[in-house]
Amino acid sequence: MGSIVAENRKTLMLFSGRAYPALAEEIGSELGIKPTPTDAYDFANGETFVRYQESVRGSDAFVVQSMTTPINQWVMETLIMVDALKRGSAKRVTVVLPFYPYGRQDKKHRGREPISARLVADLLKTAGADRILTVDLHASQIQGFFDGPVDHLYAMDTLADYLLEKYAGKPLAVVSPDAGRVKVAERWANKFGGVPLAFVHKTRDPMKPNQVVANRVVGDIEGRVCLIIDDMIDSGGTICKAADVLFDSGATDVVVAATHAILSDPATERFKNSRISEVVVTNTLPIPAEKQLDKITVLSIAPMVARAMREVFDDGSVTTLFGGLSG
Amino acid sequence: MGSIVAENRKTLMLFSGRAYPALAEEIGSELGIKPTPTDAYDFANGETFVRYQESVRGSDAFVVQSMTTPINQWVMETLIMVDALKRGSAKRVTVVLPFYPYGRQDKKHRGREPISARLVADLLKTAGADRILTVDLHASQIQGFFDGPVDHLYAMDTLADYLLEKYAGKPLAVVSPDAGRVKVAERWANKFGGVPLAFVHKTRDPMKPNQVVANRVVGDIEGRVCLIIDDMIDSGGTICKAADVLFDSGATDVVVAATHAILSDPATERFKNSRISEVVVTNTLPIPAEKQLDKITVLSIAPMVARAMREVFDDGSVTTLFGGLSG
Amino acid sequence: MGSIVAENRKTLMLFSGRAYPALAEEIGSELGIKPTPTDAYDFANGETFVRYQESVRGSDAFVVQSMTTPINQWVMETLIMVDALKRGSAKRVTVVLPFYPYGRQDKKHRGREPISARLVADLLKTAGADRILTVDLHASQIQGFFDGPVDHLYAMDTLADYLLEKYAGKPLAVVSPDAGRVKVAERWANKFGGVPLAFVHKTRDPMKPNQVVANRVVGDIEGRVCLIIDDMIDSGGTICKAADVLFDSGATDVVVAATHAILSDPATERFKNSRISEVVVTNTLPIPAEKQLDKITVLSIAPMVARAMREVFDDGSVTTLFGGLSG
Amino acid sequence: MGSIVAENRKTLMLFSGRAYPALAEEIGSELGIKPTPTDAYDFANGETFVRYQESVRGSDAFVVQSMTTPINQWVMETLIMVDALKRGSAKRVTVVLPFYPYGRQDKKHRGREPISARLVADLLKTAGADRILTVDLHASQIQGFFDGPVDHLYAMDTLADYLLEKYAGKPLAVVSPDAGRVKVAERWANKFGGVPLAFVHKTRDPMKPNQVVANRVVGDIEGRVCLIIDDMIDSGGTICKAADVLFDSGATDVVVAATHAILSDPATERFKNSRISEVVVTNTLPIPAEKQLDKITVLSIAPMVARAMREVFDDGSVTTLFGGLSG
Amino acid sequence: MGSIVAENRKTLMLFSGRAYPALAEEIGSELGIKPTPTDAYDFANGETFVRYQESVRGSDAFVVQSMTTPINQWVMETLIMVDALKRGSAKRVTVVLPFYPYGRQDKKHRGREPISARLVADLLKTAGADRILTVDLHASQIQGFFDGPVDHLYAMDTLADYLLEKYAGKPLAVVSPDAGRVKVAERWANKFGGVPLAFVHKTRDPMKPNQVVANRVVGDIEGRVCLIIDDMIDSGGTICKAADVLFDSGATDVVVAATHAILSDPATERFKNSRISEVVVTNTLPIPAEKQLDKITVLSIAPMVARAMREVFDDGSVTTLFGGLSG
Amino acid sequence: MGSIVAENRKTLMLFSGRAYPALAEEIGSELGIKPTPTDAYDFANGETFVRYQESVRGSDAFVVQSMTTPINQWVMETLIMVDALKRGSAKRVTVVLPFYPYGRQDKKHRGREPISARLVADLLKTAGADRILTVDLHASQIQGFFDGPVDHLYAMDTLADYLLEKYAGKPLAVVSPDAGRVKVAERWANKFGGVPLAFVHKTRDPMKPNQVVANRVVGDIEGRVCLIIDDMIDSGGTICKAADVLFDSGATDVVVAATHAILSDPATERFKNSRISEVVVTNTLPIPAEKQLDKITVLSIAPMVARAMREVFDDGSVTTLFGGLSG
Repeated sequence: MGSIVAENRKTLMLFSGRAYPALAEEIGSELGIKPTPTDAYDFANGETFVRYQESVRGSDAFVVQSMTTPINQWVMETLIMVDALKRGSAKRVTVVLPFYPYGRQDKKHRGREPISARLVADLLKTAGADRILTVDLHASQIQGFFDGPVDHLYAMDTLADYLLEKYAGKPLAVVSPDAGRVKVAERWANKFGGVPLAFVHKTRDPMKPNQVVANRVVGDIEGRVCLIIDDMIDSGGTICKAADVLFDSGATDVVVAATHAILSDPATERFKNSRISEVVVTNTLPIPAEKQLDKITVLSIAPMVARAMREVFDDGSVTTLFGGLSG
Repeated sequence: MGSIVAENRKTLMLFSGRAYPALAEEIGSELGIKPTPTDAYDFANGETFVRYQESVRGSDAFVVQSMTTPINQWVMETLIMVDALKRGSAKRVTVVLPFYPYGRQDKKHRGREPISARLVADLLKTAGADRILTVDLHASQIQGFFDGPVDHLYAMDTLADYLLEKYAGKPLAVVSPDAGRVKVAERWANKFGGVPLAFVHKTRDPMKPNQVVANRVVGDIEGRVCLIIDDMIDSGGTICKAADVLFDSGATDVVVAATHAILSDPATERFKNSRISEVVVTNTLPIPAEKQLDKITVLSIAPMVARAMREVFDDGSVTTLFGGLSG
Repeated sequence: MGSIVAENRKTLMLFSGRAYPALAEEIGSELGIKPTPTDAYDFANGETFVRYQESVRGSDAFVVQSMTTPINQWVMETLIMVDALKRGSAKRVTVVLPFYPYGRQDKKHRGREPISARLVADLLKTAGADRILTVDLHASQIQGFFDGPVDHLYAMDTLADYLLEKYAGKPLAVVSPDAGRVKVAERWANKFGGVPLAFVHKTRDPMKPNQVVANRVVGDIEGRVCLIIDDMIDSGGTICKAADVLFDSGATDVVVAATHAILSDPATERFKNSRISEVVVTNTLPIPAEKQLDKITVLSIAPMVARAMREVFDDGSVTTLFGGLSG
Repeated sequence: MGSIVAENRKTLMLFSGRAYPALAEEIGSELGIKPTPTDAYDFANGETFVRYQESVRGSDAFVVQSMTTPINQWVMETLIMVDALKRGSAKRVTVVLPFYPYGRQDKKHRGREPISARLVADLLKTAGADRILTVDLHASQIQGFFDGPVDHLYAMDTLADYLLEKYAGKPLAVVSPDAGRVKVAERWANKFGGVPLAFVHKTRDPMKPNQVVANRVVGDIEGRVCLIIDDMIDSGGTICKAADVLFDSGATDVVVAATHAILSDPATERFKNSRISEVVVTNTLPIPAEKQLDKITVLSIAPMVARAMREVFDDGSVTTLFGGLSG
Repeated sequence: MGSIVAENRKTLMLFSGRAYPALAEEIGSELGIKPTPTDAYDFANGETFVRYQESVRGSDAFVVQSMTTPINQWVMETLIMVDALKRGSAKRVTVVLPFYPYGRQDKKHRGREPISARLVADLLKTAGADRILTVDLHASQIQGFFDGPVDHLYAMDTLADYLLEKYAGKPLAVVSPDAGRVKVAERWANKFGGVPLAFVHKTRDPMKPNQVVANRVVGDIEGRVCLIIDDMIDSGGTICKAADVLFDSGATDVVVAATHAILSDPATERFKNSRISEVVVTNTLPIPAEKQLDKITVLSIAPMVARAMREVFDDGSVTTLFGGLSG
Repeated sequence: MGSIVAENRKTLMLFSGRAYPALAEEIGSELGIKPTPTDAYDFANGETFVRYQESVRGSDAFVVQSMTTPINQWVMETLIMVDALKRGSAKRVTVVLPFYPYGRQDKKHRGREPISARLVADLLKTAGADRILTVDLHASQIQGFFDGPVDHLYAMDTLADYLLEKYAGKPLAVVSPDAGRVKVAERWANKFGGVPLAFVHKTRDPMKPNQVVANRVVGDIEGRVCLIIDDMIDSGGTICKAADVLFDSGATDVVVAATHAILSDPATERFKNSRISEVVVTNTLPIPAEKQLDKITVLSIAPMVARAMREVFDDGSVTTLFGGLSG
């Protein structure tokens, strides 16, 4: 008579932002559930409103948002969704960001700049996010920007399995499009069995500082199918220039693999006109029909994200999914 | 020899977001300074970048942003500007928001909603804002959402001085366009010398709950020039309907006064077609040329904001500017 | 052998402050439990001491305190009770405040004032409160003062059901006693089937600013039973003056409904001497015998609070209890 | 033209709570200033209201409150005063608490208790206090409860100088009234030139645990004037019983010295009826006329507090005032 | 289909720092589990690395670390272990510190000192510790330094049971080695049935301040077996000097009891050469073989700690284990 | 008479940890001041104690600590020094860490690891650090780990000026010792006028994953003096192996440049036995005499750090010192 004792159950609920509902639907479908019905719209002056149609009390809530253009709109919507979950008494809120926004502003490149990737982490925390689940951060250090657990998934296996099957038997080389991602390229080169590694080096004229004179391939790629790897494709300029230099240096073919397909204009146009034979990406970001090309192959990260969410919910292990890599 | 002693000076610096630079310029002009030169642009995927061209170290920084459409864009830009100031060692950061964003989402109207006005206050704090300076909050309680000093300015004097001069000698009545702002209307009625007070009441059919049957004027306004007052004009629907009911109830003329001119479509069209003779607003938000009408009078809040900023910088009194009202 | 696995159960425990134990007892009785035995007393110099006689470890703790006079005493006792629960390893602490203290100091009315309603929210959070459950806040924005979930209950249904039955068939009008609560009165008017709405307007002499000249009814209430509604009754002055004006303007009867019966002196005396026929309140605050009158009807909010607490404990829905209103 | 540069001055302002205004006046008089005019009163239901009549913007604010009965009232008033200073843009807030409230609840004596002394420190911090200045904490560890600088002053010099002069030449012994303050008594014994040290030991019957059988003096005090020292005198019971035992053990006289004169009933009565010849205290707490006795000597701590405040304002050294002791 | 519902289980996992793995093993053995396999080593420059070999997701984690020399090394290792648990999604982290580090720096003894005991509490909180479990704090107030639950265990029962049995029938006296722990000694004297109480007083020459002239026993211990009690034994100097004075004052034997055996050099040497017949301590700290003596008796606190951990995990009562003392 | 107004001056004070006092002395000498006299020592059980001999009240404090072995010792000492400054009322605390500790643990390389570089940033913040000043972070993203301003200085100019002069006219190539620092090497290559760029690639046998088969130079360095650049030299293994491969690939000479000379054993031995002709480092870490070699050139970073500190104190610009790079 002194207290009421009850069983303690837990409930996974899925929430979708408006940026790319199809992805949340697909993740839900892998899990066997649907996103929670939600009213979301913008007022005439652009203020965003969100209301959940069902009780979220006590839930283990996963908010899926794909950070595509207009990205500030979706960051704010995500923060507002998290606030509504916190105030609606969700027990735990995990924000699922297949593409982490502002990842490239992960440090002050020069003085008097923001570090927006850290800012975003703090904003999410302030709104009420307990955890983040994300894919292929621009820099792994961004994990450390969030004051709480970050489950960092890797699309490399998804992409590499496809490529290994398709290009089996061909002489490959892995190429970083610039000096900054050679380390990642090295990991791919090892994954592909120790194939050659190269990168494209921007040389400058000593007399004209701050001006790129020429791109030059460092490393031996002659007679090989070059696999340019990157974490994201924005306007495609760097990659297409890299492809040109590779062909000029004797590559027999150039294939591109990247996790995040931002595809800002004129990316699609550039790929169309380039000699690159295939561009393999994932659906962390939506690719509108008008940006699609036959040579762009889109693999889904939904199965991987769904599996990780299930492990998080079940107190299983996400690390194990990636052979020890993630956490 | 044990330490270096130096004089301690303070420096006011002005920063402008991109939403409405003309307002920051005007405020700066009142203060005799220019906004600090700033690089600000969006990347192809919409991510915002900001960098100050001059050192901000040790400054008493005031960031002016006008929260117009697309409002989420400007909220994020403001947060990023504040982060850059914090990391650039500004001594104190005051965010000047002539129109406070998300002010209408100041409570949960129903369950499972966010309280976005509080969220915005917390986001500003997290980014590094020490203080807020704002004009005519939708609800004064929003002052309490920010964990720090809020200087809340009132445009009523600016608006009323103009109206008192222009409509001197006419029989006036002050009207609240709905039941929620009668208190504010009462303050105006007193300011105008105890003129009659009225409001527009939305009646409903007892048989059909949740459906407005008719608008009805409560209060006596016959034979009077009705002054509809409000804090903001969004799409103008409520106000134009109120004007119709007032004319139908015997008003000789209807004038509208409001601080924030959101003027979402079709506000301008509505005012053009209405019998309202004048709409008096301030420039807390930019009014693009295509939304201007001869009958819309725009008064500047720049002098008032500049005076308040100067008092803040000088450790003077903002309260005194408003006869004890603000703080 | 690597770990110990056990079932996870949850336990609702009820705790009562000393302000109004009968209310906590009644809530407990609705839930089928008793408040946890607690040692609580004041030292000679007024310092408050609290100790729980039973283990609170792991409990879902609900602390019920009725914020009556001396209110600072009960605020401090509540904070101390919460601290003892936090340090005693309660799993979650919900503070149940049927009357939220300092609700009227929800903004700076003039400069250099505190915002005590926000301060109280922060103090509760600091002491260790995870959530607040409260009834009819003075302003709904106070929900946003607490950094966490607030379950905001409404006594309107409780009060209105009683009044609808008792005054069925009579011609009613709903009256706000001042300009500030017309919005709430409008909600009641709709609840009562679209009956007329009015408010009492304090007019002032233009020659003598800041001095109330007369109270005047705005709206048509002639020949009707006037229902004055308010969130709280403090000393009853405003309400009794409003009743006089209503009778003078042709009301056939005046009934008062309010949630919180503060009844500071000389409220009871005033009601006794007034022509008001009935005053309907709830027991969010204790009403001592000497303040009781035959014409004061007290309805209990204990059933409603108990139901909401049970929903909170069961991860059910509080919103549903109020037709979507609360959360 | 890019910025406004100005000199940076600092301003000490003094604020007084209502508990004991004479003390703040006296401190102000030592500093050559008056407390800032303040409106402070309680509403009918006990809610406290505070408003400063002058601008506090940019000030180095010192809030003096004497934590006497009703202590919860004054704790809340202090918190509200600090909140109003923070929101009124004071630059720095130091709370001056000559008697730190709840100092005796500095740990959990048994399970399921609060640690109210820590709670108070956190509440002050939350309200906006940057620093605390206090006198003779019940336990020095309380300094560590506040997350910020605490200036801890010692009244021992003030008390000892008086006693040394008055009782010069007499054979003294220093006595702790219980086992818990022997360490402090030792410090006094050294200050008095190595006079004998004793304490009163509460013995218990092994057959009846938790029941005091007798008080016994441990240490040799025969033929001596016994100086009982303590940090505070509450109801005086322990001290008067100690005095009895001391006289019974051969003391020629008993004098009491303590910093904080709580003097809860029946302290004055007890002292009147006791053989104690003099009780020396300070005015950290007000002593109402009806509690005064000829044998109670009150020394003022105002000069010491004022000097420390001035050092704090001037960035001087408080430690030096106490021969290295404080900080 | 809207959500996934699952049972909620909880899992106790044990983690051991490298300072004293045998203690964690013994505690685990009492609980029937083993510490989680962990990679831990230092890089060449001394940086500590930790990685858990098994998933810690969702666990109720207990980190056992014995704060022995080099203590800063083990403090940092503990913080790093907690960080890895937080980022690895442990549900709750309890740090088990049988000896709380920096307990003696629990206040500023003089100005410009740190309060390192508070600092350590804040560092643990920052790293991600939810709770602390510790034994015999140097000052009980340290409980209040941590912003969360502290389970404070007492080794007195463990030590006293042994001593009561061994020295049954002998005439005992309890002695505090200095003026600061007489209170604790009094508790022991009561536990032993009201035996005499004494302490060693350091007298000083009035002409030579700050210099100890002589140690003197205050209290009557002639013809008795003196039990010197303390919370910790560091270099043993104070205790051995106290023993000498006791023997000189007529003690028949001297026995020492203390919880924490720091035993810094030359403690063992001193005890060996002293007339003390037995030193009884616990294993909160490891005692290397070369510091062992026949006259040093070591009792294990592992059973008590294990029982408390189990109560914490089971939401039972720790207070009950100590007759109401702890919490 | 209402307040005391005074001038506001600021005072730079320098504090030195015990890790490498000569560096702080040298920085002080550049500034024309000496480090503040400080008592610092370890207790027998390793607990660190710090006390400042002069008042630090109101100071702009700079704490210089060189994070050498035993690094956990110096991290803890730094935290304790900062705590003492905070509690001693320093106005602002900047921690000067020429070598940022735990920089290599800047992310989870695999699951269940800590992110110790973030942890250190949080610990410093918790202790009371307002700002950090550091040189050549292992990853620039670490700037974003600290919630406040970080002044990030670059030793590249210091090192490059020396090398440019010494190796002027020789055919140079810049080499990254592994795939992870090619980006930095590219910056050096540009600084040196667009000289060739290369890196050492660890190839693996596809049949034996996780095992390095061979190091291979990617890029053309034949006939050139190879400049291996890195941020730190730990045990020197990677660098010496890289040098071997470079010589094998046709390098005419190999020179090493790195900011942080950890020089863990057997670094000195390795360099001695290697064909590397010169190793150029700075004194961010102390190099004991026994680790010195003729071929190791040590340049001082004291002038650069002192200049940056002076800019920070004067509210000048640190960015300008580095041509826009830092902040």
